[in-house]
Amino acid sequence: MKGIGQLAVGEMLDQRVMIKQSMKGIAANGKPYLTLILADKTGEIETKMWDTSDVEKYAPKFIVHAAGEVMDYRGRTQLKLKQITVLDETNVEEYIQAAPLPREQIETEVLQYIESIQQADMKRIVKHLVTKNFNAYFTHPAAVKNHHAFYSGLSYHVLSMLKLADQIAKLYPTLNRDLLVAGVVLHDYAKIKELSDPVTPEYTLPGKLVGHISLMVAELEKVGAELEIDAEVLTVLQHLVLSHHGRPEWGSAVAPQMREAEVLFLIDNLDARMTMMDRLLEYVEPGQFSERSFALDNRSFYRPKL
Amino acid sequence: MKGIGQLAVGEMLDQRVMIKQSMKGIAANGKPYLTLILADKTGEIETKMWDTSDVEKYAPKFIVHAAGEVMDYRGRTQLKLKQITVLDETNVEEYIQAAPLPREQIETEVLQYIESIQQADMKRIVKHLVTKNFNAYFTHPAAVKNHHAFYSGLSYHVLSMLKLADQIAKLYPTLNRDLLVAGVVLHDYAKIKELSDPVTPEYTLPGKLVGHISLMVAELEKVGAELEIDAEVLTVLQHLVLSHHGRPEWGSAVAPQMREAEVLFLIDNLDARMTMMDRLLEYVEPGQFSERSFALDNRSFYRPKL
Amino acid sequence: MKGIGQLAVGEMLDQRVMIKQSMKGIAANGKPYLTLILADKTGEIETKMWDTSDVEKYAPKFIVHAAGEVMDYRGRTQLKLKQITVLDETNVEEYIQAAPLPREQIETEVLQYIESIQQADMKRIVKHLVTKNFNAYFTHPAAVKNHHAFYSGLSYHVLSMLKLADQIAKLYPTLNRDLLVAGVVLHDYAKIKELSDPVTPEYTLPGKLVGHISLMVAELEKVGAELEIDAEVLTVLQHLVLSHHGRPEWGSAVAPQMREAEVLFLIDNLDARMTMMDRLLEYVEPGQFSERSFALDNRSFYRPKL
Amino acid sequence: MKGIGQLAVGEMLDQRVMIKQSMKGIAANGKPYLTLILADKTGEIETKMWDTSDVEKYAPKFIVHAAGEVMDYRGRTQLKLKQITVLDETNVEEYIQAAPLPREQIETEVLQYIESIQQADMKRIVKHLVTKNFNAYFTHPAAVKNHHAFYSGLSYHVLSMLKLADQIAKLYPTLNRDLLVAGVVLHDYAKIKELSDPVTPEYTLPGKLVGHISLMVAELEKVGAELEIDAEVLTVLQHLVLSHHGRPEWGSAVAPQMREAEVLFLIDNLDARMTMMDRLLEYVEPGQFSERSFALDNRSFYRPKL
Amino acid sequence: MKGIGQLAVGEMLDQRVMIKQSMKGIAANGKPYLTLILADKTGEIETKMWDTSDVEKYAPKFIVHAAGEVMDYRGRTQLKLKQITVLDETNVEEYIQAAPLPREQIETEVLQYIESIQQADMKRIVKHLVTKNFNAYFTHPAAVKNHHAFYSGLSYHVLSMLKLADQIAKLYPTLNRDLLVAGVVLHDYAKIKELSDPVTPEYTLPGKLVGHISLMVAELEKVGAELEIDAEVLTVLQHLVLSHHGRPEWGSAVAPQMREAEVLFLIDNLDARMTMMDRLLEYVEPGQFSERSFALDNRSFYRPKL
Amino acid sequence: MKGIGQLAVGEMLDQRVMIKQSMKGIAANGKPYLTLILADKTGEIETKMWDTSDVEKYAPKFIVHAAGEVMDYRGRTQLKLKQITVLDETNVEEYIQAAPLPREQIETEVLQYIESIQQADMKRIVKHLVTKNFNAYFTHPAAVKNHHAFYSGLSYHVLSMLKLADQIAKLYPTLNRDLLVAGVVLHDYAKIKELSDPVTPEYTLPGKLVGHISLMVAELEKVGAELEIDAEVLTVLQHLVLSHHGRPEWGSAVAPQMREAEVLFLIDNLDARMTMMDRLLEYVEPGQFSERSFALDNRSFYRPKL
Repeated sequence: MKGIGQLAVGEMLDQRVMIKQSMKGIAANGKPYLTLILADKTGEIETKMWDTSDVEKYAPKFIVHAAGEVMDYRGRTQLKLKQITVLDETNVEEYIQAAPLPREQIETEVLQYIESIQQADMKRIVKHLVTKNFNAYFTHPAAVKNHHAFYSGLSYHVLSMLKLADQIAKLYPTLNRDLLVAGVVLHDYAKIKELSDPVTPEYTLPGKLVGHISLMVAELEKVGAELEIDAEVLTVLQHLVLSHHGRPEWGSAVAPQMREAEVLFLIDNLDARMTMMDRLLEYVEPGQFSERSFALDNRSFYRPKL
Repeated sequence: MKGIGQLAVGEMLDQRVMIKQSMKGIAANGKPYLTLILADKTGEIETKMWDTSDVEKYAPKFIVHAAGEVMDYRGRTQLKLKQITVLDETNVEEYIQAAPLPREQIETEVLQYIESIQQADMKRIVKHLVTKNFNAYFTHPAAVKNHHAFYSGLSYHVLSMLKLADQIAKLYPTLNRDLLVAGVVLHDYAKIKELSDPVTPEYTLPGKLVGHISLMVAELEKVGAELEIDAEVLTVLQHLVLSHHGRPEWGSAVAPQMREAEVLFLIDNLDARMTMMDRLLEYVEPGQFSERSFALDNRSFYRPKL
Repeated sequence: MKGIGQLAVGEMLDQRVMIKQSMKGIAANGKPYLTLILADKTGEIETKMWDTSDVEKYAPKFIVHAAGEVMDYRGRTQLKLKQITVLDETNVEEYIQAAPLPREQIETEVLQYIESIQQADMKRIVKHLVTKNFNAYFTHPAAVKNHHAFYSGLSYHVLSMLKLADQIAKLYPTLNRDLLVAGVVLHDYAKIKELSDPVTPEYTLPGKLVGHISLMVAELEKVGAELEIDAEVLTVLQHLVLSHHGRPEWGSAVAPQMREAEVLFLIDNLDARMTMMDRLLEYVEPGQFSERSFALDNRSFYRPKL
Repeated sequence: MKGIGQLAVGEMLDQRVMIKQSMKGIAANGKPYLTLILADKTGEIETKMWDTSDVEKYAPKFIVHAAGEVMDYRGRTQLKLKQITVLDETNVEEYIQAAPLPREQIETEVLQYIESIQQADMKRIVKHLVTKNFNAYFTHPAAVKNHHAFYSGLSYHVLSMLKLADQIAKLYPTLNRDLLVAGVVLHDYAKIKELSDPVTPEYTLPGKLVGHISLMVAELEKVGAELEIDAEVLTVLQHLVLSHHGRPEWGSAVAPQMREAEVLFLIDNLDARMTMMDRLLEYVEPGQFSERSFALDNRSFYRPKL
Repeated sequence: MKGIGQLAVGEMLDQRVMIKQSMKGIAANGKPYLTLILADKTGEIETKMWDTSDVEKYAPKFIVHAAGEVMDYRGRTQLKLKQITVLDETNVEEYIQAAPLPREQIETEVLQYIESIQQADMKRIVKHLVTKNFNAYFTHPAAVKNHHAFYSGLSYHVLSMLKLADQIAKLYPTLNRDLLVAGVVLHDYAKIKELSDPVTPEYTLPGKLVGHISLMVAELEKVGAELEIDAEVLTVLQHLVLSHHGRPEWGSAVAPQMREAEVLFLIDNLDARMTMMDRLLEYVEPGQFSERSFALDNRSFYRPKL
Repeated sequence: MKGIGQLAVGEMLDQRVMIKQSMKGIAANGKPYLTLILADKTGEIETKMWDTSDVEKYAPKFIVHAAGEVMDYRGRTQLKLKQITVLDETNVEEYIQAAPLPREQIETEVLQYIESIQQADMKRIVKHLVTKNFNAYFTHPAAVKNHHAFYSGLSYHVLSMLKLADQIAKLYPTLNRDLLVAGVVLHDYAKIKELSDPVTPEYTLPGKLVGHISLMVAELEKVGAELEIDAEVLTVLQHLVLSHHGRPEWGSAVAPQMREAEVLFLIDNLDARMTMMDRLLEYVEPGQFSERSFALDNRSFYRPKL
């Protein structure tokens, strides 16, 4: 049985899925309808339920049995729903996209990198922070959409960047490996405060009004005082977090002013773009172009025949 | 006796002044020289000492007796130094530009505005912070150059904005006056961490790598936890501080998302520009244009004859 | 009985309203329909009439009795029309949004500010211009949409700015109050030429090809010659009008080059934004965010619980 | 005898020239000096007079006998002055750069183009305006520096554009030739108000605070009322003038909204750039690059060997 | 019988036309439909076929008999299809828009301009290239949409520019006419590689990944080597092609660095804009505004009554 | 004996060095002088020779014995020259900065990476091109200034990027390693045409008018035809070269449209920035900031004490 993300136009869906979002609307002809986002581990698809606005009956995180045909609607797939039944189940974790590695492996590898930090205070504060919100850190997504918007997406993104950082630190010996590792582990840490929960993430009030970058700088200040962390270590970690979007116009309050800050920005960018390009080209045949991606400057990507 | 800022081209200086800056150089003909910035309460002027590079003898904060003639050098005044003698004095506060109001009056009025805050937690955290660094808050400048770059410049700027905020809150009754007042008092508070000292201010390491906006958001987090401040109050104050530069490209990590945040940004701008325009036009005759001001988009301003 | 602007989704409309706009269209299924904008004093709402294209029968400024239910359509309210009858009435002024103050009060207060101008020629030309188009000046809106797009919107905007200007002139004594007052009264004066009429305003040909700023500079030249106004007064007033959008990229032919021109630009901005934010947040509950506003840089605004 | 503009580095000047500008300065060694711009019909050169600040003795428009050697100073030529004597002469017109055509020929040809306008009101207002300031229109430069900054530069620029407009109107028959001709004649007309005089032009107060574009729109309004010009003609001429800088960010209050306005903008640009490129490449050998030109986007131009 | 481009809203179509594009979709109510672009020599119109998705039966380049009524859909015309029958015909050339001049005339005139080139190598390479792809050069459009998107659009655009270049070379004698002529003939030459075919043009793979500008520079290198063209001629022609979009942000790899390159850019722009404005205003009445044009900076154009 | 790049302010130079540049000037006092750039393997320093303009006697690539003291001139070091003697030596290669690895090692490693390409045509064209200009490819710098502006700078930059590409291809298995390797080897290949020679590089005429990116696309076209390379391979290699500056505004004619093109752009950027940051921080003490770097967005970088 194919998953939602694997169905092509013309194929039929007839299986258990989770409602991820549910929104009311009225059609051009004045009738009410619901827009549902149905999801399973392989992806998600939009569908319409006509002549109903019962958003409580078809609520997010409900498990349903749905049947219908996959159609093309303005270049995007959409499900033409034939039948839908709400089930009495709550095992949502079986219906959500997750990182390509098991959570346990991500945990083990990230913790090994943290253990490899040499500088005592830096290691102490990084360990403290990850331990303090252990579960959230290893289950939260890195975003609501775009790159790493899946269960454990945050820590999977961190792990990919740690591997890059490790190689780059070997190729460029002037880099302080401790700073790079600590910066990677902490740079998106406050996404656990910015986003509400790992399954159906939404922006929180502090997420909207303050944002994960400033929330993390504030967290470092508070925890740094509790643990009596060395002032230089604290300032430098705050700088790594603050500058990791690279330029003010991309949401960075200050521009990178240390080698390690510049590299952190560049490999964050590299991992995010690779992930988005891979998803975009996943089902594209050799010799074809993908759809356009808004997050990739509205570009369409080509998959060579070579 | 005229002060430094009041001397016109062709007039003579012959009095006690303070060395504000001292820098070594070598001339086009290969000889060493010192560039000194001499200052008193009324302003400052640049001068050159030829054939010396003794920056220890003519160091910042030293009081000297200087004599010479004011010349025009590429449109800016410069002192042609005839004689300079280092004095054994340390009363630097008599030689620095200060706010146009006495510090005591600024203190009294700012504290009255703080007392007028109604919301209990907001008043509590604002009072705590101002009290905690009372002396620095009422003596620091608001900048190294441009607007309010003088002794007590920070609190004088705050007081001017409080008066504006007070009137605007009366004209637009939907504004939450408490939020405006608290936002004005706190918005530049962390300049006391960003700048080294009130007399010869320089950027500190946290000032460069983190910046006063993020330093303040972090300070609010730490103190908010200590005082157990209500979460909504804390988030909203952090937002006011974070967004007060208005747009990301002007150094604001997030754009204003509350009425009061937008108004805070606008009146900060209004007070800063009025102050810069007033200084620019101070000695300009009616019917004449001022010099160009880099900080005012390189504009030159006209003083009408009316 | 609730007005159009006060109805929530799910509530019923059943009352007299005015047709403000009427546009033909064809639906996705090929059938013709009309889009009507229905309005009363409290606001306006869009509705669709299916299977008709009779734009003469349902024309702008016609009074109708309309009934239907308020629905949500992609985040905006829309009326699901059940019944509509054209009435034989012409009292359109009872169905249009107007300034929050009575026209008489606006007139009286604006005229008092004009009387307070000290400089003779400046007072003479300002009085002449306002008197010459008295009725239009006190009934025109300030815009077709966005801020102050209502009956007497122009003069209400002027009055709000005069109150601000008055306070600011007190706080910053270097400002020439006459110039500020005259600049505020005249800055948008030529909107009475740019927009066709106060009830269903559209851009005129000179409005599109020349624009209200240049139209006003031209008007000042012509009237200045008639009244033999002092050359400096005329040039300075033309500059205030020309520069009040602040920067070339915001439609200002020249940048402000006088203190009063800069302040005029800033308080125009402040009043426009306060008005837009107030309208945006009018029905938003504490703790909630508003819709996004295109005119406010696509921001959504938060109404704090405090 | 070579003119100033024809002297190469290493050659000697020893002849009568005019002082075009005279500015005081003090050298790095504290001594006063004068910077003079010396000019004749072929060009101008900068020189320094050491140990003097007598700007009254060496004033603009004075004729002097000067001798010295042409040197290279940071890539620009500069005269090393050996001797200078003020003469008792006032024939400044023999020492200023002028258009490459005699003024009489420019007059005759421009007037012929004006006569060729068919539409009565358009012809009437154009003739009236040119006649009213006949002498100024045919002697003013088009600018203080950059393109057409010479005696009769304004009308020479107009004539070149008229020839272009004439050909383009033939190639694109949908263009209204009358509008193009009238637009070309009037587009820079108000430079006679913006710039003080044809020999040593400086910006006037209305030139700085209002600018030639708005001054012309205002002039058309006033004269249009006097001559009772048709409203459409007036609006359309105002639009041509207003939009001829093409885009708001290039100083155009409105963008071109008629075919003829777009073409006016494009040929103004074409003639200005051709003139600047020709001057830049005038003495450049085949196979060489010119200096960089700030007004041409800081580009350097190549003269091919072909 | 009126052509497709001449039909007004409310008129009927009942004649032979060509299917230019055919795309599948599903409606808001879940039903499939086809969007067809129907075309003839005078223009094209969009229509919808309901309840079918048979894109093979209604394929591009098929000739059909279609009947229906022209409707207005959101400001654009659309055909409400009543009947459609596929015909057994293949004479597509009778149904496509073509240049306003016969192909033979375009050929003759362009070849005469090429013959007028004086420089031997330049003439040789230009003739070789045009001869090598003679048929494609004189039938390809210059674009998929916007300006000159019709049969022989490329060579018609070239011919219009050659006429402009000819006149401009006479008015500005410093221009090298050979370079201008050769630059005009070659500047868009590689559109024959960038676009698939003259009737239903689409971007090719090299068109997307390399683009016509770089494809032409590469072609010149290869052919230049074959014909042993003088190095300076080759470099200069490559520069003319490379820089003809004027600025990097408009797709030009290098900015123009020769007089002729700057003029080539300007007249390419002039001809493109005249063509777009003419098409936009073709059916607009005097005293009216056109639709907005995205390619013309979203401007609407006015057709004066004069 | 310390090299030029290692001397601090106040230290003495007294040894053999090479003249790298020699430029004439005249001082503010009217006297001629020469500005010389003196260089050895460790760096370069500017000096002035007073009262001479004999640029033939002190010409580029001449070996001299120079003595003097290192001074600070406006924040940059400058040599105060005491004595200079031209020597009869020509061993310039002993006086120029070179890559940190021996040329032989760079050759060997780069060739190994080329051998590892799997796809036959891709390997063939890459080998052909590198072999064809073997000596130039392994001695040219990558730039005149900024990053890798030294002997063998081009191939050293290529080798660093190959190591990065190799690791990244392992971490992201969807990348086509052949394409990455070929793209890295070829991306800056045409710098050997853009820059005149490896010792005192200047831009060539094709370098200025065409640029290394377009020169390489053209070279691939010509050589691709000679070797009959597969069309897809050729197009894809041209795309990698064309898009490696990432965005049109950074000089890229097309944006990257393949995963490998995006990664090529990112690692080119990463290696360039690491190299510039390393040079900037080379002699900076822990706890200090570097000078500002124009090429790094005018940033100053901090070297942490950790």
